[in-house]
Amino acid sequence: MESFQWGIIGLGLIGGSIARRLAQQGFPVLGADSDPATRAEASASGVFEALLDPPALVAAADGVILATPVGSIEVLLQTLPWRPGQLVLDTGSTKRRIVAAMGRLPEGVSAVGGHPMAGKERSGFQAADPDLFLGKPFLLVPTPRTTPEAAARAEALVAALGARPIWMDAEVHDRRVAWVSHLPYVVAMALMAAAEAAEDPALWEIAASGFRDATRVAASDPRMMGEVVRSNADEICAAVELLCQVLARWRDDLRASPPLLPSEWEHLAVRRQALRFPT
Amino acid sequence: MESFQWGIIGLGLIGGSIARRLAQQGFPVLGADSDPATRAEASASGVFEALLDPPALVAAADGVILATPVGSIEVLLQTLPWRPGQLVLDTGSTKRRIVAAMGRLPEGVSAVGGHPMAGKERSGFQAADPDLFLGKPFLLVPTPRTTPEAAARAEALVAALGARPIWMDAEVHDRRVAWVSHLPYVVAMALMAAAEAAEDPALWEIAASGFRDATRVAASDPRMMGEVVRSNADEICAAVELLCQVLARWRDDLRASPPLLPSEWEHLAVRRQALRFPT
Repeated sequence: MESFQWGIIGLGLIGGSIARRLAQQGFPVLGADSDPATRAEASASGVFEALLDPPALVAAADGVILATPVGSIEVLLQTLPWRPGQLVLDTGSTKRRIVAAMGRLPEGVSAVGGHPMAGKERSGFQAADPDLFLGKPFLLVPTPRTTPEAAARAEALVAALGARPIWMDAEVHDRRVAWVSHLPYVVAMALMAAAEAAEDPALWEIAASGFRDATRVAASDPRMMGEVVRSNADEICAAVELLCQVLARWRDDLRASPPLLPSEWEHLAVRRQALRFPT
Repeated sequence: MESFQWGIIGLGLIGGSIARRLAQQGFPVLGADSDPATRAEASASGVFEALLDPPALVAAADGVILATPVGSIEVLLQTLPWRPGQLVLDTGSTKRRIVAAMGRLPEGVSAVGGHPMAGKERSGFQAADPDLFLGKPFLLVPTPRTTPEAAARAEALVAALGARPIWMDAEVHDRRVAWVSHLPYVVAMALMAAAEAAEDPALWEIAASGFRDATRVAASDPRMMGEVVRSNADEICAAVELLCQVLARWRDDLRASPPLLPSEWEHLAVRRQALRFPT
């Protein structure tokens, strides 16, 4: 990626981690963020060649990575002064609406949808970590503006981050992340809501690692996750529906006398034991 | 606890960890386990004064800790040759049935229900860890056989394990663990079942830390957890019912156009961020 100038708009955990990794690998990086405190931290970090406002960054960068919340990504795609020959990537957690917005970019601007499957409980530039993406899946989604060169450049970026590129269409992407990311988030929130409904403060004293892990993602920024959930509401509703059908069936088993264990539990436990996750 | 002889029946993760901690603190410990391989490991560990069969252990120990699966605890309470003056404790994850069985022990045998809120993904004596209970809640439940001396002895044991004793009645215990342990377990299994129902093997390639943590407890031994769930089925069904009501309400919010975020999400995120767990 010699002599290719990257620019990143949105310097939170994801954008900041990409910037740190690229800088570590010797690539020049420009940055933009709407928050003055984030700009001050980013400036002090020495990671960036320069911090610009978004239009100036778009004017100066060969490749622009949009790493803001999903709602703002759509707005930035519509409003920034994109230039033919330029590449745009994003890191949003849902892809159908963003890919559609990428299809409306001016002719000659190339674009690829992106979604790194990596996160942390902490957010913000201060939590940024150049190793955040190592060994993790980085989902890549073709758009009406994805040229072969753009695809190769996106894959080279993923390789530079130490992540694994996995291509899939936007519809498939949004369905899959509904199952593995958004449903677990909604369920973690529901476990919190149900435990709160018990109105028993002592619950929080005895909650152990099982509850901690089951609800960990409920601590995510609800405004950021709220945008994600709204943008994938149809797929998430379908997943919630299926989950509730499973739970209703099991509740009937457990209400039998003597209580029956759901017949698939042994199989599900074995499946879960066999799953391997990138750490 | 000088000159007090402890005996532990069931040398899996919990019984083995108690044994290792007591031995480390200089207390003599007898052990019993129905599995020959576990007995061989326990014998080779040098932790135990002797490994006996359960009736011989009951004949020799001043205090007996039943650390087998919950179903066997009830059987052992009914069938072993308990002696007046002896103390019995257990470590089962549900307490109503066990406490009732303790109430049927011979006169003069004292008994306290116990439940350490500690666990691991791995099980068995090989995973036993003397530090497993450090700083963790150790729930203690009074029984019709709980004398003041028995209560003090149980608290001294919890102190020796480095855990925090928290007393509560069996009914309250079983309701609380339904919310913080059993519901998260059932939900983790349901997330696995729902993801399997999607019939998309690529899901497992992109599942990241959110899915990993949300489903971690689903990897527990389903036979051990099955006994626990059966013994607390009424409370778990009530918790599942409430959870599904919450999810149905939120699904309706998300189906609105434009999708509404459930009004309590901001509050729930703040609550979860504020929770502190013993590590």
